[in-house]
Amino acid sequence: MDYSFFSLLVQDLDINLKGIQMQIPLRRLDRKLTDTESLSILSKGEYGILSMSTIENGGYGVPLNYVLWNSAIYFHCAIDGAKLKFIKKNNQVSFCVVGGTEILPSKFGTKYESAMIFGVATEVEAQEKQKALIQFVKKYSPEFIEESIPYINHFFKKTRVFKISIEYLSGKSRKT
Amino acid sequence: MDYSFFSLLVQDLDINLKGIQMQIPLRRLDRKLTDTESLSILSKGEYGILSMSTIENGGYGVPLNYVLWNSAIYFHCAIDGAKLKFIKKNNQVSFCVVGGTEILPSKFGTKYESAMIFGVATEVEAQEKQKALIQFVKKYSPEFIEESIPYINHFFKKTRVFKISIEYLSGKSRKT
Repeated sequence: MDYSFFSLLVQDLDINLKGIQMQIPLRRLDRKLTDTESLSILSKGEYGILSMSTIENGGYGVPLNYVLWNSAIYFHCAIDGAKLKFIKKNNQVSFCVVGGTEILPSKFGTKYESAMIFGVATEVEAQEKQKALIQFVKKYSPEFIEESIPYINHFFKKTRVFKISIEYLSGKSRKT
Repeated sequence: MDYSFFSLLVQDLDINLKGIQMQIPLRRLDRKLTDTESLSILSKGEYGILSMSTIENGGYGVPLNYVLWNSAIYFHCAIDGAKLKFIKKNNQVSFCVVGGTEILPSKFGTKYESAMIFGVATEVEAQEKQKALIQFVKKYSPEFIEESIPYINHFFKKTRVFKISIEYLSGKSRKT
């Protein structure tokens, strides 16, 4: 874990956390995680759920692989699809990652840790897109970096890459 | 797994699947699951992500324990909070459950199975609320049904229970 990256990111976040944070107060403060802990969950997660608003302003969430890189969440998708339509209409999205969970039957509860961000999803192109795709390979296929180059080249134009700025970060856990 | 229940539920769904289904066509038809398979994922999942629309019509998703019962998804929450505010504004939500996943490093992909529903979230009260809470105990604390009775009674007025009707059901998987 790269704490210097986390510290930097957390520092960046402090500037931007006004407004939205007021809207979603965490009810159980005893379960609130620090920004560093929340970022650690985002950093380690295998997938997350991207939540968007539909054309009729309902909720819509889909699971996605992602990378936490460059102080943002990156995901990729096909050239067209429902996600793109919804993001085009409203690019304010949230992204949620759940870490370890364990049911506690005798306590009628669950141990868990989760982190979520709010931010604006924007498409990235050219160099940033290329670099983000390489980050995916580093995260999910670290033994196949060399083999990934023709793969990335082949799919580069068939894939779109989006970045979600982290404008609000929140984490929760129940440990006992 | 209770297939008769599933069959019944799938039959019910056919009636209601107009409209929304057109909005979200599944691009990769080779990865589409049957309704029975999708319901099986919802039935077995430990938690799901409830996606809602915020006051500003952005996306907002949170992980929740839930039960699939009475042809609907039920979840419970505290007396007040962000979820309630957002559902009050727009009760069209989606709920997504991810089953098993496995990263396939050499294929630059992931095996997965996931299911999602769209529906309308409405609060339930009295007998339906009581019965739904007992379903939670049956799912998460099956050895503690007797002990749960005073627990449910104690928290009954401190908890709100919502039902999401299943108006659209979809499932995806990648198996190889």
